[in-house]
Amino acid sequence: MTAKLIKGTEIGEQILKEITAEVAEIKGKYGIVPGLVTILVGSNPASISYVTLKIKTAHRLGFKEIQDNQPVDISEKNLLALIDTYNKDNSIHGILVQLPLPKHIDEKKVLNAIDPDKDVDGFHPVNVGRLMIGGEEVKFPPCTPAGIQELIVRSGIETSGAEAVVVGRSNIVGKPIANMLFQKGRGADATVTVVHTRTKNMAEHCKRADILVVAAGVPGLVKPEWIKPGACVIDVGVNRIGEKPSKDDPKKMVPILKGDVDFEAAKEIAGSITPVPGGVGPMTITMLMKNTLKSLKFKLGIQ
Amino acid sequence: MTAKLIKGTEIGEQILKEITAEVAEIKGKYGIVPGLVTILVGSNPASISYVTLKIKTAHRLGFKEIQDNQPVDISEKNLLALIDTYNKDNSIHGILVQLPLPKHIDEKKVLNAIDPDKDVDGFHPVNVGRLMIGGEEVKFPPCTPAGIQELIVRSGIETSGAEAVVVGRSNIVGKPIANMLFQKGRGADATVTVVHTRTKNMAEHCKRADILVVAAGVPGLVKPEWIKPGACVIDVGVNRIGEKPSKDDPKKMVPILKGDVDFEAAKEIAGSITPVPGGVGPMTITMLMKNTLKSLKFKLGIQ
Repeated sequence: MTAKLIKGTEIGEQILKEITAEVAEIKGKYGIVPGLVTILVGSNPASISYVTLKIKTAHRLGFKEIQDNQPVDISEKNLLALIDTYNKDNSIHGILVQLPLPKHIDEKKVLNAIDPDKDVDGFHPVNVGRLMIGGEEVKFPPCTPAGIQELIVRSGIETSGAEAVVVGRSNIVGKPIANMLFQKGRGADATVTVVHTRTKNMAEHCKRADILVVAAGVPGLVKPEWIKPGACVIDVGVNRIGEKPSKDDPKKMVPILKGDVDFEAAKEIAGSITPVPGGVGPMTITMLMKNTLKSLKFKLGIQ
Repeated sequence: MTAKLIKGTEIGEQILKEITAEVAEIKGKYGIVPGLVTILVGSNPASISYVTLKIKTAHRLGFKEIQDNQPVDISEKNLLALIDTYNKDNSIHGILVQLPLPKHIDEKKVLNAIDPDKDVDGFHPVNVGRLMIGGEEVKFPPCTPAGIQELIVRSGIETSGAEAVVVGRSNIVGKPIANMLFQKGRGADATVTVVHTRTKNMAEHCKRADILVVAAGVPGLVKPEWIKPGACVIDVGVNRIGEKPSKDDPKKMVPILKGDVDFEAAKEIAGSITPVPGGVGPMTITMLMKNTLKSLKFKLGIQ
């Protein structure tokens, strides 16, 4: 048996098309588009590349997008004042501060200064709390877990009553996806087990899983024999295990990526599985855009 | 084998003594005591009885305590203004609004108006978020789950690497205790499974549990054969299944309480178990007092 591939590139593309259509419709009806600002402090190359991708995607969807670049020596006070300006700006519905920030700035203080109703990353304690409370309380589920849930739902995987096992307990993936999967409702109602470094029999737990979400950051952690035949396997790991020449330009080296699951062997046992790259990865920016659209819709009272 | 009884009455009493000593010490050093206000709207007899018990306990510990009774027809606006007054009052460290509120008042709006740093019940989204984020972020864990964790720790039960199964996914008990048990740290680091009404094989999950926390609200749901020999069983259920004459006054009827676990049979299998009543119940007010003391300590910068 070879598992069905859950392609985040394709599912993400479909969602981006839906967002584009909705943006156009809202623009026609209300004369406003989602506004997203990305604040970049300094010129870390990786940060520039992330921000550029976000801005490019926002632009393509018809969003208003602002790339606000600030010098690396901006004071914390001035950065907080800048956030306050965007908090008050009615044309802005999502505020992103690209991490990491320079060491003289308190990251937590800066992130917590973002208006929770514009915190489209979903990491502000208020939004984390809303996520755990569940139901109508939820505004902005964090982007990677929200992407995982979409991949599961759009692949036709039944979550209600399913055994879901989450490997890893990070604040970015493990904890929020666990909380999302055991809530009531669509793409949820699962029986959820969270396993982690202190778990004694990780393999046994994974073997029970109808839905296995792996976000441990350990390349090849999950062995094929840990997978229940027919299970849905979501591999969130993006581990750089080396470099190889780029296909486009053989003189340029690109990272070799490996997931937390031994993909080649696992795909012969699982019912469906995400590849790395091209699985969960592309969903994060997609869901960020969806959250920004949601923010506008909350403001317009149409969601 | 007969299980060791985990007596919340005794453990709670011990914690209250510790709080009393700490309050006296802080009073001596800083000249201030924890201040708790309980806002009661109307005169619901059950609410009066809860508030009275809270106030009595606070008084016994040497807290400043205010019982602020408001008429049933107070406007939402005036109630919000009242909360704002206590938010600004430097002698008040914990604000409780007794529920339920009359129907003309939006409960959620009122609860969310409490300063999260005085929300000693721990139900404000900010505090729910802090709980899920974990570690030093946590300020006020909600009182019943915090009481459960204390019972487990003070009974000498090892949680690290233990299999914990939580039955029920309420916002008051199931979700927060699950999130607390899978965090890193003291009384945590457990492998946690959350089971609920949609779970297909609840008995099988419970049988795996070294620590079984039952908060389903279904009398006698957990059968003795669901319990792993030697397990720690925490029964959060307080179900009224009838009435009986009071011991103190045989003319007066008092409710007959039954937990979610078939206690008599379960205690022959479990290693330790909470009785109902006298198990988890008394811990809730105790932890409320502990949160109020913590609030003062945060303010003084001594925690």
